[in-house]
Amino acid sequence: MSAEASLVRDVLDEYGGVARSALKDALDQAARRDPVYRLAADYPMRGGRALRASYCIAAARVFGASIDEATHCAVSLELLHNAFLVHDDVEDESEERRGRPALHVIHGVPVAVNAGDALTVLGLRPLLKNRLTLGNTIAFSILEETERMVRESVEGQALELRWRTENASELCDEDYLRLVLKKTCWYTTIYPSRIGALIGARGRVDLDRFVRFGFFLGAAFQIQDDLLNLLGEHEHYGKELKGDLAEGKRTLMLIHLLRHAPADEKIRLLEFLSVPRSARTAADLSWLRAQMDRHGSIEHGRKVAHALAGAAVHEFAFAYAGTPDSRDRRFIASLPHWVLERT
Amino acid sequence: MSAEASLVRDVLDEYGGVARSALKDALDQAARRDPVYRLAADYPMRGGRALRASYCIAAARVFGASIDEATHCAVSLELLHNAFLVHDDVEDESEERRGRPALHVIHGVPVAVNAGDALTVLGLRPLLKNRLTLGNTIAFSILEETERMVRESVEGQALELRWRTENASELCDEDYLRLVLKKTCWYTTIYPSRIGALIGARGRVDLDRFVRFGFFLGAAFQIQDDLLNLLGEHEHYGKELKGDLAEGKRTLMLIHLLRHAPADEKIRLLEFLSVPRSARTAADLSWLRAQMDRHGSIEHGRKVAHALAGAAVHEFAFAYAGTPDSRDRRFIASLPHWVLERT
Repeated sequence: MSAEASLVRDVLDEYGGVARSALKDALDQAARRDPVYRLAADYPMRGGRALRASYCIAAARVFGASIDEATHCAVSLELLHNAFLVHDDVEDESEERRGRPALHVIHGVPVAVNAGDALTVLGLRPLLKNRLTLGNTIAFSILEETERMVRESVEGQALELRWRTENASELCDEDYLRLVLKKTCWYTTIYPSRIGALIGARGRVDLDRFVRFGFFLGAAFQIQDDLLNLLGEHEHYGKELKGDLAEGKRTLMLIHLLRHAPADEKIRLLEFLSVPRSARTAADLSWLRAQMDRHGSIEHGRKVAHALAGAAVHEFAFAYAGTPDSRDRRFIASLPHWVLERT
Repeated sequence: MSAEASLVRDVLDEYGGVARSALKDALDQAARRDPVYRLAADYPMRGGRALRASYCIAAARVFGASIDEATHCAVSLELLHNAFLVHDDVEDESEERRGRPALHVIHGVPVAVNAGDALTVLGLRPLLKNRLTLGNTIAFSILEETERMVRESVEGQALELRWRTENASELCDEDYLRLVLKKTCWYTTIYPSRIGALIGARGRVDLDRFVRFGFFLGAAFQIQDDLLNLLGEHEHYGKELKGDLAEGKRTLMLIHLLRHAPADEKIRLLEFLSVPRSARTAADLSWLRAQMDRHGSIEHGRKVAHALAGAAVHEFAFAYAGTPDSRDRRFIASLPHWVLERT
């Protein structure tokens, strides 16, 4: 493991621990009020790195805040992230999440949709508590940032659903990157840095400086995640291996294959994508996976992820210009390296 | 029609028109940004009385505000109301809404879940705009009220889902009223008056005074709504007639029947409730409906609705004590009468 990846792992352990502990308190308190939150706590309590919460805390510290001042936002981020996951899993008909059956597989779609809504409203609560710790103005600005982030995420998910409903076949890398900017980058990398800087600098930093760094970093992260789903081992991944293939998810690799497969293969591919998930066989998935190797789609995904991570390294200097050297700053600077080393 | 019901109709026409017009503007603007909002605009654009928005505007005016000052909240209420409807229809497997197929029947569950989320985030936007018209403090307090209202609604829906999942049979009127307080009253009657008073009185009125009036009024409204579903004509109702029976919805009337049916009928009733909706036949529904007449369940519902509306009339004097006479005040005072006269 590189020194960069090792530092990221250490900081994720530390800040992730802080976020998970505060998250557990929030969930326990809610569950004492109403049993729906016991059910809604399932995904958040399955564990996870708390990457978004950790990045938010680190960004806040880079701009002068304490861990405590960023904790409400960190907890909210984890709750909203899990709310997205619950609804996304319903919408994508995913079968597994973090190594266990998806919530709707366990409890049915009606209960899962309701549990996702419960997590959303629970995620608003810590942002209201910010009023006491950060004051009216910053707390309100964070709410405005949150509205934007949720909006981008919902619109991104809508776009991906449209691609599936319309069985979109004429997509290019730019379409994919536009999707991933909305669906992944806003809540994974752009929003955590924007609200971190808001908390730390109390409104004295222009937040648009974080968009490009967050976009390059988040896109590299998503492509790497999709590569792991195609290549990884189940026990190290936690979602069903090749689940993205079974879902017909328009990953960068699938979009590449759609563009580079010969006409007869493209017909078979589009037919595969047009049938319900349940009609897709293991043999179909193996064939699809083999074509991705054969036509260089996996290799293309790797190259684009590396290029994006490289661009993120470059953009970091601009996004965090003028901030003093610190462990938190080095952690953020190391994220592009860590993204590529994840297995 | 009584003078009270006639006044309510006139004010609903006027304020409902204001709310629908501002709602349409918000939806048009959003649809220009992203196509998901065209789809999400379906339910809001099917029309409706805009009861909640109108009540909010009237309450604001009773406490001294202008219509304009309450419009952002009125639009938000309609958007959040429709967001609930979209997800509730998925969760309840409802087939119709306002005389047309439910959103998930038209587009499938994945798109409907996403469209509900899109309406939720769209409903937050006008509340953020309140910052400019009402100032930081009142705008923030409205957000806190909104978090509470959404929380109550989600918890109420969760409770109803639990009753269905566990095939709850030992329920009483108090259980039903507890459900309806959370699931209906908070967003239909309690929240609109609380935020109306907040806007009008700028934080100088204790908001808890509205809870009892809102509870009595909202519960009478819900029971009357459920009676209309059992008794009404399809063209006047807009949801499938007897849809509540097909869904196995624990209405006050069904709960009464569960308590008063003889043992052999209760067994048949519980079996009916335990099977999936698709396994319930038209003959089952007719039998169930006939038993409700036979055992006085319909009559019981009517009596309780009348008693609650009477209690609301009584509570009105307390909730709106000290406010000067006005058309808005008389509109609110007339709501309990109107609720019982709806057909």
